[in-house]
Amino acid sequence: MNSIVLKKWSLVRHHLNSEYLKTLTRRMSSSSLLTIDSINQRVKHMEYAVRGPIPQRASQLESQLKSGQKLPFDAVIRANIGDCHAMNQKPITFFRQVLSGAANPIEMHSNPKIPKEVKERVNELLDGCGGRSVGAYSEATGVEIIRRHIAQYIRERDGLETDWRNVVLTTGASEGAKAILSFINTTATDGIPTGVMVPIPQYPLYSATLTELGMNLISYYLDEQNQWALNINELRNALQKSRSICKPKAIVVINPGNPTGSVLTKENIENIIKFADENKLMIIADEVYQHNIWDPNARFYSFKKVMQELGIKLELVSMMSASKGFMGECGLRGGYLELSNFDEEVKAVFYKMLSARLCSSVLGQIAMDCVVNPPPKGTPSYELYVNEKQEVLKSLRERAELIAETFNSIPGIESNGVAGAMYAFPKIVLPSKAITAAEEKRQKPDFFYCMELLETTGICVVPGSGFGQIDGTYHFRTTILPQTQTMHKMMDKFKQFHINFINKYK
Amino acid sequence: MNSIVLKKWSLVRHHLNSEYLKTLTRRMSSSSLLTIDSINQRVKHMEYAVRGPIPQRASQLESQLKSGQKLPFDAVIRANIGDCHAMNQKPITFFRQVLSGAANPIEMHSNPKIPKEVKERVNELLDGCGGRSVGAYSEATGVEIIRRHIAQYIRERDGLETDWRNVVLTTGASEGAKAILSFINTTATDGIPTGVMVPIPQYPLYSATLTELGMNLISYYLDEQNQWALNINELRNALQKSRSICKPKAIVVINPGNPTGSVLTKENIENIIKFADENKLMIIADEVYQHNIWDPNARFYSFKKVMQELGIKLELVSMMSASKGFMGECGLRGGYLELSNFDEEVKAVFYKMLSARLCSSVLGQIAMDCVVNPPPKGTPSYELYVNEKQEVLKSLRERAELIAETFNSIPGIESNGVAGAMYAFPKIVLPSKAITAAEEKRQKPDFFYCMELLETTGICVVPGSGFGQIDGTYHFRTTILPQTQTMHKMMDKFKQFHINFINKYK
Repeated sequence: MNSIVLKKWSLVRHHLNSEYLKTLTRRMSSSSLLTIDSINQRVKHMEYAVRGPIPQRASQLESQLKSGQKLPFDAVIRANIGDCHAMNQKPITFFRQVLSGAANPIEMHSNPKIPKEVKERVNELLDGCGGRSVGAYSEATGVEIIRRHIAQYIRERDGLETDWRNVVLTTGASEGAKAILSFINTTATDGIPTGVMVPIPQYPLYSATLTELGMNLISYYLDEQNQWALNINELRNALQKSRSICKPKAIVVINPGNPTGSVLTKENIENIIKFADENKLMIIADEVYQHNIWDPNARFYSFKKVMQELGIKLELVSMMSASKGFMGECGLRGGYLELSNFDEEVKAVFYKMLSARLCSSVLGQIAMDCVVNPPPKGTPSYELYVNEKQEVLKSLRERAELIAETFNSIPGIESNGVAGAMYAFPKIVLPSKAITAAEEKRQKPDFFYCMELLETTGICVVPGSGFGQIDGTYHFRTTILPQTQTMHKMMDKFKQFHINFINKYK
Repeated sequence: MNSIVLKKWSLVRHHLNSEYLKTLTRRMSSSSLLTIDSINQRVKHMEYAVRGPIPQRASQLESQLKSGQKLPFDAVIRANIGDCHAMNQKPITFFRQVLSGAANPIEMHSNPKIPKEVKERVNELLDGCGGRSVGAYSEATGVEIIRRHIAQYIRERDGLETDWRNVVLTTGASEGAKAILSFINTTATDGIPTGVMVPIPQYPLYSATLTELGMNLISYYLDEQNQWALNINELRNALQKSRSICKPKAIVVINPGNPTGSVLTKENIENIIKFADENKLMIIADEVYQHNIWDPNARFYSFKKVMQELGIKLELVSMMSASKGFMGECGLRGGYLELSNFDEEVKAVFYKMLSARLCSSVLGQIAMDCVVNPPPKGTPSYELYVNEKQEVLKSLRERAELIAETFNSIPGIESNGVAGAMYAFPKIVLPSKAITAAEEKRQKPDFFYCMELLETTGICVVPGSGFGQIDGTYHFRTTILPQTQTMHKMMDKFKQFHINFINKYK
């Protein structure tokens, strides 16, 4: 080659090399930026089984069915999540009329078919919104008139004075729970994790959030033999053991219980409050199922009311949601927190913290308003509302009974009564061959069982290990939400599956 | 006293004492549970000036006016927050028809006045919802059809392939920003804070969130002399200086700029991307004002598009919202994130993290759908939509020009042009006597100025110190959202106030 060609070749080679090197560096750089090991490891370890691998597999199976694939079942039954409308529960007409009218008041006002009381409610709510629009931000704590209505609801429920300024509208109850846990978290500055007592089994929002925040979950086991009540000795022991590894600050109680379906007695609540008072623990009361009481001998007592009767003044946060109850408006993300006995300065800091997220959905807030402030008595909307509400509650009550009875009729399955909430959490006795088979697949035995249930029958439930359970025991959580006909079908299939499963691994 | 009386008295006294002691303990215990010093200290130090003391004082003044009190003004003008509808911007008819119809489809279908294209859109969206209800949870990442529509919008905007599975619906853009910052935060496990480069001045969501998460904010100053552009030398220096105190992982860019009202040139974006690539920084692009471009010489370029053109593959998160643009639906809390160049496993963990908060508001998601997917061309709704959109944008453009011009006509105030977004961030020269007066009140001088502006004129703006500024300079942020007539009035009052203020402290 002559020198010119050589020079050119050298240039090309140089260019190629530098391009190649650049690409290589880039590839290394882009793959090394965010890897499974370089992200927040707490997040990596978070678990939320309600939307975990089994529900994800259920989605795949649904897609397969949709695309015409043949499976051993013709529909997936989603009993994994408390998603009422997804299971064809009908919304309350008044709620939807108010929401629809608030979104488009001009249309509503020109529509003679919309009842006067709906129009009045929409007007009242829009008066509280900036520019009379649900498209304006509310205060971080929520629309004032809605906070006032919530206070009025609590006042009537408990017969106690309630200050609307202690009420904060949140994005479902979940956002509220996360905010309050972050608020009390001093792990970083104390050099020792902040501890929060959480029932086992629990709703995994708590474990997931505590993991994300680097806080310590202090497990206390609910007493399965005693309708999942809280046992004070168990609380004492759990707290005592935790003191060497964390600084306990709060206790979470879920009443009515998720996943347990239990309703706490007043006496049990009294003892919990006394225990919290003795041990200087703030109480976080997840009371989102307060309208879901099925056992005629059970009654919902708010922690606030019982605490007041005891004359105890302890910081208490009560959470409520528009997602459960008889309305089941999960997708609207309405919820609230009520703070009791908070120092004013501390409360102001909490509200400041909430201000950076601007506000929760104003339509979600309006859904919450409808829950706490039904249509006025004597109006046609009221009649309809009462009928619709009673119908939903009656049907849920029937299914709560049906599900517990049916499980108890299956050998090897044992369930407490579903006294409240929307779930049963039955115990299953698994044959040792099934446990071995699970271990071979590196799966937890109850996960193995639930996955086989899904693959065989299309029934999607969540293994007990996603909520926590005593070692060596196995459970699953199912909702009571499939409509009656589907539920009968589901229970038949479940029974048959369980018998076959036991035979298979006998 | 005989022995029986004595014994009784002793019992009473004992009882009294124990009651007294109990009360005392309780009082101590309840006041020591959550105090300003025992809560999360990071939260205590969080600041979010957009809803800070000045807006709070504005609310008080509004209440005073409402109750008939005489003040030097008859209305508060809220120019502190980008809350379009609160400033009487009208919503887009099609959006509200769809939202209203989705909330109450039965009513909608029976209403002959609702256009066919609205009904079709509602049907399409409800087909994607569980039980055909906006009251059902969506997947944690959002309703699939809405994610697909967003991907289509991005595809058309940038002329690039877009995978809908990289799109996640969020509660406004704020939730998305917080989630991604938490996701990359390894402060706790590294023992050294994770650093994030943030422009100064910045939108205080970033500083507030980084403070809450214990992360390190690496300030880089925007170049006020150069239309608030990013200066690469400034970025290099800021990054270099930060390396001894944190582990830099990401750079936040807000384009169009909040609070600056700037729009980055393509060249500037290219240089930022190259800088990020060289320094292995993920890019968090806050692009929520992408529809708000006022300067006829400016154009919105997405980071995604420019990055693709450069052939660089770097993790990128782009944020968008239904709250800004021409729709201004802040209260509905609709927003999305698009992830680019994320490792699949990493993305799966991010989605798992989001699953614990269940989902964002389905009606907020529907608002986002309307933004990315306008009514079909050729329908009456399309005509109306185009007109409404153009009218809002035209009026905002006029106000963007008016506000910068007026400020620049006031001696001692200097403003860059409002090329985009919804804000001006003018510089003010404050007399030294005003600075002394502020210091005597232990206030920052620009806070002092803004508070006096509020008390004198009712105009509520946010001091520059809430966003950050070069030491010794003073600014404030005002929105361009007051309607034209109000804005004229506001600018007149502002001018008069400023002249009087300068004279007062001369």
